[in-house]
Amino acid sequence: MSIPTTPPSGFRDFLPEACAARAHAIQTISLVYRSFGFNQIATSAVEDLEVLLGKGGGETEKLIFKILKRGEKLEEAKGGSELADLGLRFDLTLPLARFYSRHGSRLPHPFKAFQIGPVWRAERAQKGRYREFYQCDADIIGSESPLCEAEVIRAMSSAFLALGLEQPTVLLNDRTLLDGLFEMGNIPREKRLQACVLLDKQDKMERPALLSELETLVGAEKTKFLETVVMAAEPDEDRLAAADSDAMRRLQEIHRILGSLFPNPKTFRLAPSLVRGLDYYTGPVFEFRHPKLAGSLGGGGRYDRLTEKFGVKAVPACGGSIGFERLMLLLEEAKAGPALKRLKACMTVFSEELRPHALSAAAALRATGWDVDVYPGAGKLGAQFKYADATGALAALVIGPDEAAAAKVKVKDLRSGAERLETLEAIIAGGPAKP
Amino acid sequence: MSIPTTPPSGFRDFLPEACAARAHAIQTISLVYRSFGFNQIATSAVEDLEVLLGKGGGETEKLIFKILKRGEKLEEAKGGSELADLGLRFDLTLPLARFYSRHGSRLPHPFKAFQIGPVWRAERAQKGRYREFYQCDADIIGSESPLCEAEVIRAMSSAFLALGLEQPTVLLNDRTLLDGLFEMGNIPREKRLQACVLLDKQDKMERPALLSELETLVGAEKTKFLETVVMAAEPDEDRLAAADSDAMRRLQEIHRILGSLFPNPKTFRLAPSLVRGLDYYTGPVFEFRHPKLAGSLGGGGRYDRLTEKFGVKAVPACGGSIGFERLMLLLEEAKAGPALKRLKACMTVFSEELRPHALSAAAALRATGWDVDVYPGAGKLGAQFKYADATGALAALVIGPDEAAAAKVKVKDLRSGAERLETLEAIIAGGPAKP
Repeated sequence: MSIPTTPPSGFRDFLPEACAARAHAIQTISLVYRSFGFNQIATSAVEDLEVLLGKGGGETEKLIFKILKRGEKLEEAKGGSELADLGLRFDLTLPLARFYSRHGSRLPHPFKAFQIGPVWRAERAQKGRYREFYQCDADIIGSESPLCEAEVIRAMSSAFLALGLEQPTVLLNDRTLLDGLFEMGNIPREKRLQACVLLDKQDKMERPALLSELETLVGAEKTKFLETVVMAAEPDEDRLAAADSDAMRRLQEIHRILGSLFPNPKTFRLAPSLVRGLDYYTGPVFEFRHPKLAGSLGGGGRYDRLTEKFGVKAVPACGGSIGFERLMLLLEEAKAGPALKRLKACMTVFSEELRPHALSAAAALRATGWDVDVYPGAGKLGAQFKYADATGALAALVIGPDEAAAAKVKVKDLRSGAERLETLEAIIAGGPAKP
Repeated sequence: MSIPTTPPSGFRDFLPEACAARAHAIQTISLVYRSFGFNQIATSAVEDLEVLLGKGGGETEKLIFKILKRGEKLEEAKGGSELADLGLRFDLTLPLARFYSRHGSRLPHPFKAFQIGPVWRAERAQKGRYREFYQCDADIIGSESPLCEAEVIRAMSSAFLALGLEQPTVLLNDRTLLDGLFEMGNIPREKRLQACVLLDKQDKMERPALLSELETLVGAEKTKFLETVVMAAEPDEDRLAAADSDAMRRLQEIHRILGSLFPNPKTFRLAPSLVRGLDYYTGPVFEFRHPKLAGSLGGGGRYDRLTEKFGVKAVPACGGSIGFERLMLLLEEAKAGPALKRLKACMTVFSEELRPHALSAAAALRATGWDVDVYPGAGKLGAQFKYADATGALAALVIGPDEAAAAKVKVKDLRSGAERLETLEAIIAGGPAKP
């Protein structure tokens, strides 16, 4: 029996076209992040389990792909939690906190980092949700200035624009503002976490179902408060300021810094019900929304306590992450990305005798910036033209006996089928843009 | 107690400078592979264990980082081999064989693929040997032509040259030639595998120790044959042709194709003792050597049977892999890579009042191709200059009250300390090359 050829559930293969689109997007995001002064770093895919596991374990622990111990250590393990010692990272932020705790003294202060790479989560695979996916993070560590939030939001926005998307909407909130609103609305302390979990599901649940669950949790009157004040499409800023004036000042400051650089005032929206997960945010949070996408295109916020786990106290930090798989979905639908294909020609091999001509012409063209595929074999030109077309080459080049004798190359345009004879020098002079 | 901040043994963090050098090398290799007509593909880091495990298990199995089953499946597992269902890929060739077996009908024929990515091996970590490392593979599937070996070798050579290395030496051999030589030397069949294992250690063992082990294995007379015929620095081609004339014809053909394109005839060396691992090669094998490196800088060969495991028979294939970590070691020692740093300036923030000037000037500069880091905060200019210097910026830009009033920018050259006043337009006109 042969072995199945599909990747494991939730994992994917990428064919050349998809792979080129992803490589292009990654390169574009890298250049934009770099242009904002972020420095690329990389950490390992694998971390010690004690780094990955939170104090409680729980939900996070279930997400982790754990790696079985090896050799003697496995033999000595008594089962259960002793079986694994390593795990695959489930985000890029926790590894960044470890990285900064270790290397901080050798890095500029403040430190602007970016990371692009895969993360792994043992979630149930479903449409659009994968177990291996890329994140593109930009973070500023060591500064409390609201300029950090503004720069992270701008860098992420610029990356979206550079990829040909229209400007997404940016939702802004502050975790302490939400706390203040819970206080104002007399939401009982012990029910706030559950209320947060429900608010975090706003995208995924129908509004009536969400309100009904909130009502079950805190009663009708408090649900009314949550609906009209916290979940309001256009929240009352004075009321929010009454709930937490410091948080509102921070948000207004971020908004003021950004406002001058974004022409459309509707780009930003105050969203007091925005939660962005429950884990580690301690101040402002933000999220990018696109009209063609349910859910977010990315987001982030301030997390001032993440290095404490590693014994490094009081390091202010703020960062954001682009949801790369959703971005690719959007780019594919919008066909928004700039042209990805490099111009490519296929050099055919007329015969073994004439192969040296083909090879040296291909080498000369490559040296001047062409992508030239030499047909890997020999045989009928028809099959070679078919191959050239299948690989996305724009032209096939032929050096047969007549062409060799005349020191010319036959150029077959694979779109029109037209053929013409040219000297190699003329093709080179024409440049790779015009095969 | 705080959690340790080092990555697991054999895994690494990359700081900005190292990360930029790696990104540059990956980008360069990608462009070169693409210029030779190879198409980038990607497979998942995680594969089903049955894909990764050979028939026998054994040595390969020990290399695999296995992933613990999750949820109910783990509860049902009876221990031992039932504990894990997935594993991290240990090379890029086996995933390619799975990929081609699955997608072959949708791909051009022949198919030229390249892959660049990390692989993982649970080996004992030691200097220069890591448990997570990158490979850069180029493969041609579906053609028996010796042009495949030649194109793979040329693409890899071109990548080395594009990174500023001198041309490495290419060792050539054929697995069936080695079999023929064992036959010619009357090496007993049952000792050939062990003899191969020893020959494969030529780089790692002192010559006398190796010969002594061979003598223990096959006796003095046969060791003499292995030493003078198989391990000869300048092997006798007639004798090799007598051992396997077909293999020698293939090698001479590859050599002939390549010869015309490599000016130095010493670039190629016939090495009948070259083994390149024991696993899957079926014909010609090759290896790149650099005088500054013990061991190889990469290599490859023909493997015509790898898709059989997936039920796809008789697919000829040939490929090579650059040992990326050794390459980086060499580039670091040789300082051979082209200049990696993009030119970067740091925009200081004089005060909150003047911050909008700084931000809009930074935005204008970025739009014309500059990398501009805005200092993420505020405070004394001295600290901001220090930050700018630490991040590798070449110049710091200041817009204080005087500059704002005069509609100018102060440019501080961080190497010389010299300062000058310029209009933003003049800086833009100067271009990012001259901060």
